[in-house]
Amino acid sequence: MPYNVSQKLIKDHLVSGEMTPGKEIGLKIDQTLTQDATGTMVMLELEAMKLDRAKTEASAQYVDHNIIQEDSKNPDDHLFLQSATRKFGLYYSRPGNGVSHPVHMQRLAKPGKTLLGSDSHTCANGCMGMLAMGAGGIDVAMAIAGEPFHVKMPEIWGIKLTGELPDWVSAKDVIFELLRRYDVKGGVGKIMEYYGPGLRNLNAMDRHVIANMGAELGATGTVFPSDEEVRTFLKSQHREEDWTELLADEGASYDLHEEINLSELEPLIAKPSSPGNVVPVKEVAGEAIYQSYVGSSANPGYRDFAITAEIVKGKKIANGISFDINPTSRQMLTDLVDDGHIGSLISAGARLHQAGCNGCIGMGQAPASSRNSLRTTPRNFPGRSGTREDSVFLCSPETAAASALTGKITDPRMLDMDYPNVKEPDHPTVDDTMLDPPLPLEDARKVELVKGPNIASIPEMDALPDEFDLPVLLKMGDNISTDEILAGGARVLPYRSNLPKISTFCFEIIDETYNDRAMQAGGHAVVGGYNYGQGSSREHAALAPRYLGLRVALVKDFARIHWQNLVNFGVLPLTFSDESDYHQLEEGDVLELRNVRTQLPQGKEFSIAIKGKQKTINVTHALSDRQVDMMLKGGLINWVKDRQS
Amino acid sequence: MPYNVSQKLIKDHLVSGEMTPGKEIGLKIDQTLTQDATGTMVMLELEAMKLDRAKTEASAQYVDHNIIQEDSKNPDDHLFLQSATRKFGLYYSRPGNGVSHPVHMQRLAKPGKTLLGSDSHTCANGCMGMLAMGAGGIDVAMAIAGEPFHVKMPEIWGIKLTGELPDWVSAKDVIFELLRRYDVKGGVGKIMEYYGPGLRNLNAMDRHVIANMGAELGATGTVFPSDEEVRTFLKSQHREEDWTELLADEGASYDLHEEINLSELEPLIAKPSSPGNVVPVKEVAGEAIYQSYVGSSANPGYRDFAITAEIVKGKKIANGISFDINPTSRQMLTDLVDDGHIGSLISAGARLHQAGCNGCIGMGQAPASSRNSLRTTPRNFPGRSGTREDSVFLCSPETAAASALTGKITDPRMLDMDYPNVKEPDHPTVDDTMLDPPLPLEDARKVELVKGPNIASIPEMDALPDEFDLPVLLKMGDNISTDEILAGGARVLPYRSNLPKISTFCFEIIDETYNDRAMQAGGHAVVGGYNYGQGSSREHAALAPRYLGLRVALVKDFARIHWQNLVNFGVLPLTFSDESDYHQLEEGDVLELRNVRTQLPQGKEFSIAIKGKQKTINVTHALSDRQVDMMLKGGLINWVKDRQS
Repeated sequence: MPYNVSQKLIKDHLVSGEMTPGKEIGLKIDQTLTQDATGTMVMLELEAMKLDRAKTEASAQYVDHNIIQEDSKNPDDHLFLQSATRKFGLYYSRPGNGVSHPVHMQRLAKPGKTLLGSDSHTCANGCMGMLAMGAGGIDVAMAIAGEPFHVKMPEIWGIKLTGELPDWVSAKDVIFELLRRYDVKGGVGKIMEYYGPGLRNLNAMDRHVIANMGAELGATGTVFPSDEEVRTFLKSQHREEDWTELLADEGASYDLHEEINLSELEPLIAKPSSPGNVVPVKEVAGEAIYQSYVGSSANPGYRDFAITAEIVKGKKIANGISFDINPTSRQMLTDLVDDGHIGSLISAGARLHQAGCNGCIGMGQAPASSRNSLRTTPRNFPGRSGTREDSVFLCSPETAAASALTGKITDPRMLDMDYPNVKEPDHPTVDDTMLDPPLPLEDARKVELVKGPNIASIPEMDALPDEFDLPVLLKMGDNISTDEILAGGARVLPYRSNLPKISTFCFEIIDETYNDRAMQAGGHAVVGGYNYGQGSSREHAALAPRYLGLRVALVKDFARIHWQNLVNFGVLPLTFSDESDYHQLEEGDVLELRNVRTQLPQGKEFSIAIKGKQKTINVTHALSDRQVDMMLKGGLINWVKDRQS
Repeated sequence: MPYNVSQKLIKDHLVSGEMTPGKEIGLKIDQTLTQDATGTMVMLELEAMKLDRAKTEASAQYVDHNIIQEDSKNPDDHLFLQSATRKFGLYYSRPGNGVSHPVHMQRLAKPGKTLLGSDSHTCANGCMGMLAMGAGGIDVAMAIAGEPFHVKMPEIWGIKLTGELPDWVSAKDVIFELLRRYDVKGGVGKIMEYYGPGLRNLNAMDRHVIANMGAELGATGTVFPSDEEVRTFLKSQHREEDWTELLADEGASYDLHEEINLSELEPLIAKPSSPGNVVPVKEVAGEAIYQSYVGSSANPGYRDFAITAEIVKGKKIANGISFDINPTSRQMLTDLVDDGHIGSLISAGARLHQAGCNGCIGMGQAPASSRNSLRTTPRNFPGRSGTREDSVFLCSPETAAASALTGKITDPRMLDMDYPNVKEPDHPTVDDTMLDPPLPLEDARKVELVKGPNIASIPEMDALPDEFDLPVLLKMGDNISTDEILAGGARVLPYRSNLPKISTFCFEIIDETYNDRAMQAGGHAVVGGYNYGQGSSREHAALAPRYLGLRVALVKDFARIHWQNLVNFGVLPLTFSDESDYHQLEEGDVLELRNVRTQLPQGKEFSIAIKGKQKTINVTHALSDRQVDMMLKGGLINWVKDRQS
């Protein structure tokens, strides 16, 4: 049977399940990627699992998010991450070395491999003929420990590319065209696989741009074939030996179909405040801007900066514009300096920032209130820039550069100049000075973790007791989000490596007495309504309440990811068998759970008595056998620890 | 009578007083400098004064401190500052153009002129044969409005330089030698004037390094002659016409004397946590470091970065070191890029940051907890780096570069290489793209101030009433600092442009009910003990309570600068004529002031009745006639407003 590229990748890594869209499959993970914002918890999880050494072929920890360092918390995290990579046998990309996705592509990506990353744009490396997927931190920790990754078998969506990009139109406009057609949920449950004659005109870094923003369509992954363009790229990185060809079989088919004629595209732009809000640039041309911003994993290539430089070379940007240049890798910055492009940018009036994610994830570079910001970044959700009432447009480097010159949104085709056709350099600098390789095992075993005062190990968590009495500490309504369970933002996030401290913020938006009462009660339960745990996937929203003693969340139904996180951290997620029982329970009631360890494996339903009330209610769980086993052990960390030993 | 350079500068600008050390003199101010952290309030003060146009020869507003932009407050401030410079006829140096002191030196400094700046390192431009002094914000606002600056006539301290710096020793080590000899209060009440044959071997930018850190000795100013080196520098900036010779007269004398033989100096370093804690580098050599940091107004020259680059060229910095490069001006960054130095730094493993103050004032780049940081910055006070328990050493670029290579504090003479004798470029880039000149008057008058939601005008303040009843809202003890009156830090300082908002933090450390009670009471008084208002010079600590209705501060005695700030903002500073009366007063008492407008000009003492208590107490003021006039009008802003109209 002829396979497409995605199917080949899945088939080669399938360890459980069958390749029927919608069914759970288990996949062997070859490589992992973590960044610093999510990676500290991953490393603490590895410590808690008592991992000896990473079992993947290559796992890399990048420091690219929290590189501003307003106090000791971020630099302490960097030192912790470095020590953890040395201990567990990971690569460590130092602060200043660049953004995870392009650096991984340059130095570690390999066709035919799977990559799991605790960053939603991990899909970017699908440009290299890889199956690259974003996931929660503990999923990545599990993969580092050698466990398979479980996901529903996606539909494979074949996107046929024909034609050739016109002047002033670039890869960014290709993914914008898909967002224009399908909006931000168009890719959910799908892998987007690109094929067709148009691929010939997109080099590996162009494909990175397209693959990256598969995340904005909600796709499980983006897959490109590994062809001569990938070989050329690997050769330029002195890694031609890592290349293998990976093409769809003759006659391969797709579950869904789409086609884009590159020749017909024009410069596109995503208006505030969604990446799916795409229109032609000419429709919004003329609006005054405050900022023009080039960089991020959505336009990380040498080409993206070089063409920006060529467009502004010898000219001056409009007065009052903040023209922010964010190099994406140190290697590439070296070439951009050597080739004169950085000089051109600075002379034109650019603000040159250190290599990293920076403003793309709200770390500086926020625009002024109510002023338009043009960015080559992947996301423009409200407030993500750091400015509450922001107005962020997403665009290509060409549009950003043209607009910087005029001071207003400008279709780059309107510039009075020829299109500067720059390409990736044939012989780029290759320099791993700031990418530390894994230590040899004997050295690694001697490494002690370096923990600043804000870094606390994850405490041991006990197995599920067979019987317990759990007071209900909170009774909540519908649609409680993970932001309400554990807020994000600058006040809370610096404690991402400190479970005892971050736990003090649990549920504070709902009831600020919760923390004290939980500390007093120990084991306890919470009750909620529909769609409990919607919103952000942050695993801290399960781990932190668990740390405070949460053992059962009993609700009408769960949001998917939070349910998974509760399971992972050993909090029993239960639903009312009869939703009207929700009204039977009050804050302060005590749930009597009995014979839990026997009942859980036996069936999906069991009953709980309410202490002193002569009432019982029936509850239901949705755990698989694997998950029941995990739950009995007290969560995923304990489960893996058992398997490691 | 033969004059030294300082005396000439003072004599040429003297508008009141006599040149006897310790006596108050009034000086005409030719140029001003404001940075963004202090400048927003200065611009609001100009607005409140209803200034039509700056009356100085050149006034420049730099944006170099708050350039991280985590939310809209900083960029909104930038837009406000730009609009204010356009309205009032000032230069505007955009974010990314660099640090105020070197940029001012390059583009605006002129021998023979006075410069007043709302930044303590304003003295740096003394390298250009100027009398350059730091001052409070409203002093600079006054100078912009054409008013003289009042200061006690300093003693002139002649520092004779002989000999020539050895290899691996540079200008930074000269000022360290003075700090080693005299510590951080050695320059108080003095101007440090350099002369002698050693000057021949120090170019203008070397002298900037020395002049800058006069601030760390507490000096009123630093003065160098304007000689051929200054001419050479101005010529390189295409401003030779701005040069005038300014040398000490034959036979000129100094109030105090010191001599340094440059040939005998060795690499020096200031240990934590004071710039006066100076020892030879070799004494602390071998200590492991976390960070090596090059930049700031204390080492701003092309030479400082070029020599760092030459030292690390073709090598790699030690693993685990954060090697932070902070360019000080955009002009200079262009040359450093063109000449290959930036390339050398990045290749060696540097983190290249945007041009600005950055970590020097705790805006990012904080070191990890308890790790040593080596910096070419001027200050290492505890916690200034952003890290509470920091360990910051100050050193030359040579020492910073050598230590980055070895990973520990290293005397650069121990490196196995010849000293790379780099110099300032003869033909540096001159580029004012990001330095907007003042608007012509007719255009300026049309400009509206641009105020984001966090920028609030200073409300009109009323004249001193002739009689009023003032409840005592706080009775405090001794040594109340301005930090207790109005805290600094990241929680409070973002509201520096928003008087109503920042006022809500007044006295909250002492009594958090103060704000509510003041809002309710309106006009009120506070009572304190000795040394009231010690610490930071921040003028907000007078302005914000005044905004809440504070009219009288009655204490045992005042710290000097806070006393001045109270006067400037129309709060009557009174002391007990008989200190034992302190015990007569309680919180809640009401002071009855009568015939104040008549009594104040008549004498230094008058009496106040305590309402309903049949008691009166005698109080004393220390206002000069000028200050009485100011006080009657309601403060300096009103006083100037009257004079403008």
